[in-house]
Amino acid sequence: MNNNQNLPEINGIVCPVPLSHHTKILMGHGSGGKMMNDLIKNIFLPPLNNPALNAGDDAGVVEATPSLRLAISTDAHVVSPLFFPGGDIGKLAVCGTVNDISMLGAEPKYLTAGFILEEGLDITILEKVVQSMKYSAEEAGIEIVAGDTKVVQKNKADGLYITTAGVGLINIDIVLGGAQAKPGDVVLISGTTGDHGIAVLAARGELGLETDIESDIAPLNHLVRDVLTISNEIHVLRDPTRGGVASTLNEIAAQSGVGIILNEDSIPIKPAVQAACEILGFDPLYVANEGKMIVIVSKNDAKKVLALMKTLRYGVDAAIIGKVTDTPPGRVLMKTSLGSTRVIDVLAGEMLPRIC
Amino acid sequence: MNNNQNLPEINGIVCPVPLSHHTKILMGHGSGGKMMNDLIKNIFLPPLNNPALNAGDDAGVVEATPSLRLAISTDAHVVSPLFFPGGDIGKLAVCGTVNDISMLGAEPKYLTAGFILEEGLDITILEKVVQSMKYSAEEAGIEIVAGDTKVVQKNKADGLYITTAGVGLINIDIVLGGAQAKPGDVVLISGTTGDHGIAVLAARGELGLETDIESDIAPLNHLVRDVLTISNEIHVLRDPTRGGVASTLNEIAAQSGVGIILNEDSIPIKPAVQAACEILGFDPLYVANEGKMIVIVSKNDAKKVLALMKTLRYGVDAAIIGKVTDTPPGRVLMKTSLGSTRVIDVLAGEMLPRIC
Repeated sequence: MNNNQNLPEINGIVCPVPLSHHTKILMGHGSGGKMMNDLIKNIFLPPLNNPALNAGDDAGVVEATPSLRLAISTDAHVVSPLFFPGGDIGKLAVCGTVNDISMLGAEPKYLTAGFILEEGLDITILEKVVQSMKYSAEEAGIEIVAGDTKVVQKNKADGLYITTAGVGLINIDIVLGGAQAKPGDVVLISGTTGDHGIAVLAARGELGLETDIESDIAPLNHLVRDVLTISNEIHVLRDPTRGGVASTLNEIAAQSGVGIILNEDSIPIKPAVQAACEILGFDPLYVANEGKMIVIVSKNDAKKVLALMKTLRYGVDAAIIGKVTDTPPGRVLMKTSLGSTRVIDVLAGEMLPRIC
Repeated sequence: MNNNQNLPEINGIVCPVPLSHHTKILMGHGSGGKMMNDLIKNIFLPPLNNPALNAGDDAGVVEATPSLRLAISTDAHVVSPLFFPGGDIGKLAVCGTVNDISMLGAEPKYLTAGFILEEGLDITILEKVVQSMKYSAEEAGIEIVAGDTKVVQKNKADGLYITTAGVGLINIDIVLGGAQAKPGDVVLISGTTGDHGIAVLAARGELGLETDIESDIAPLNHLVRDVLTISNEIHVLRDPTRGGVASTLNEIAAQSGVGIILNEDSIPIKPAVQAACEILGFDPLYVANEGKMIVIVSKNDAKKVLALMKTLRYGVDAAIIGKVTDTPPGRVLMKTSLGSTRVIDVLAGEMLPRIC
């Protein structure tokens, strides 16, 4: 834990330079953790200031007409390698944006895809990636309605990058968002945590890690639709991608001004993911997911929502993992298996670069 | 001119390999010309097949609700250098997407921005680019409602890339698109051609070219609004970016199944741009613009539209440059200053890489 809020901490080591004093972009600025939040707060938000962006949710919500709200989102995808067990950059690009839109309670409808291709890329790789986007788009029931392609010279990209943006329609009369968690609410997760990050890491072959862990990438829009149909007391939905469950819950705690207390024993983790994390020295709570969501719901409806999720394809391993409290505001704590309580902080620097 | 439609032509030389037989991505696949069209037709359209994408316009048009049509568009921006006379990658990223949406007669409202940053980038550069996006967004009257940032290692990008996507509302009861040109229509351009491409090229300093030419980057949404207010006989609007006026008119001729005849003497070109093109061996009709639009309008309304455009900030150099004919379908011809007629073909390979 970092007691000096002005100094960044990277892998437990407090850096001598305040985040706002970095003069160069570092890998940690793309981590989904503290350094990235600092970049967003200092560089992006002040000039681009508007309510939809400032809200800090997975997608911006706008009122297109008095009778129609839209959720609009974007994600740049730079995952390395391009193909890994359970998915590829194309599936990731479609599901990532579908999920961000879904987390605001919107029905994702339209996607765009901007490709940056490196000179010399095998066209068969591009073909496979586009085919994969087709399958994911079909599963999610969305259309890719606009695209763009640019080519850059050798060594000015890494195979290919895809930036998707999406538009969803908010038909329902509810307000979801990171600021809606209330003391007394229950925290659920839709399945095991850390699968995606470890699958990608293993596919790199850099760490001598052999495993059959597959990424959990999936479009969650149908799961979201079903959950919102069964309960009108859902307050927050968010997908714990970069920075993992720990960073996502910290964001929610800060936005809502509440505390969150997790039970370590309740958090579903695949034994192979747990083992890989122990070998590599990672905390699975900080490892990225691409097909999971956090659900914060009233205590009344929590069991009903959990029971439904367990019957659905992408919710079979769902679990109640904690609760929302009024203190300490903005912090996440965890009751460990050993009976102690520890602070779960935001990811400080970079743990797994280019995981999505 | 290329008489064998299966063989590509690059700078006037017919390639021995059909476009569809390329196995690697080449710089020409990002040119806005024949090679890019081939990639789109062979790799992207067959799997992603839907009416909005297949239309081949600057933005996809969808019916979000029975009473609301949206225009949705995206562009990846990889311009090099990041700053050049008249603009920078931030201004380009905002205006490029604003203009694509405007060309369908939509009112651009919401933008997203996905950033891919290279490790080691000076944060002050990012700050300047975001500030520039702010100013362009303000001028266009749009909001950037969602963003994303990824960081890649040194030599896996080139400073920074920005992919923007945009959403516009189509309130008016007209159908604009590349397939709407009709024989008898008149072809206008909103100003001089080639400024952007030559300004970026000069900024690279690679060709020993010194010039004070500035890029024409501008948001054209207000110009579009005013033109559509004065005439309900506008059939096509399109911004001649990559591939220039020549490629844009060829696209329209193909989509509408009409011929287009240009008058060389009527095409507005700045003397400095003309001189630079002569020195470099470029045809200014193939050089990119970022603040110009082609207007195809009925003969009845052409003079009225021209007169209005000349009173507006981004239309002072507007001119009538040609007409739409029924023959030869799908081809663009030009009556030259010398009285001869020549075919204006689509750009074949790559003339100016990374111009936008």
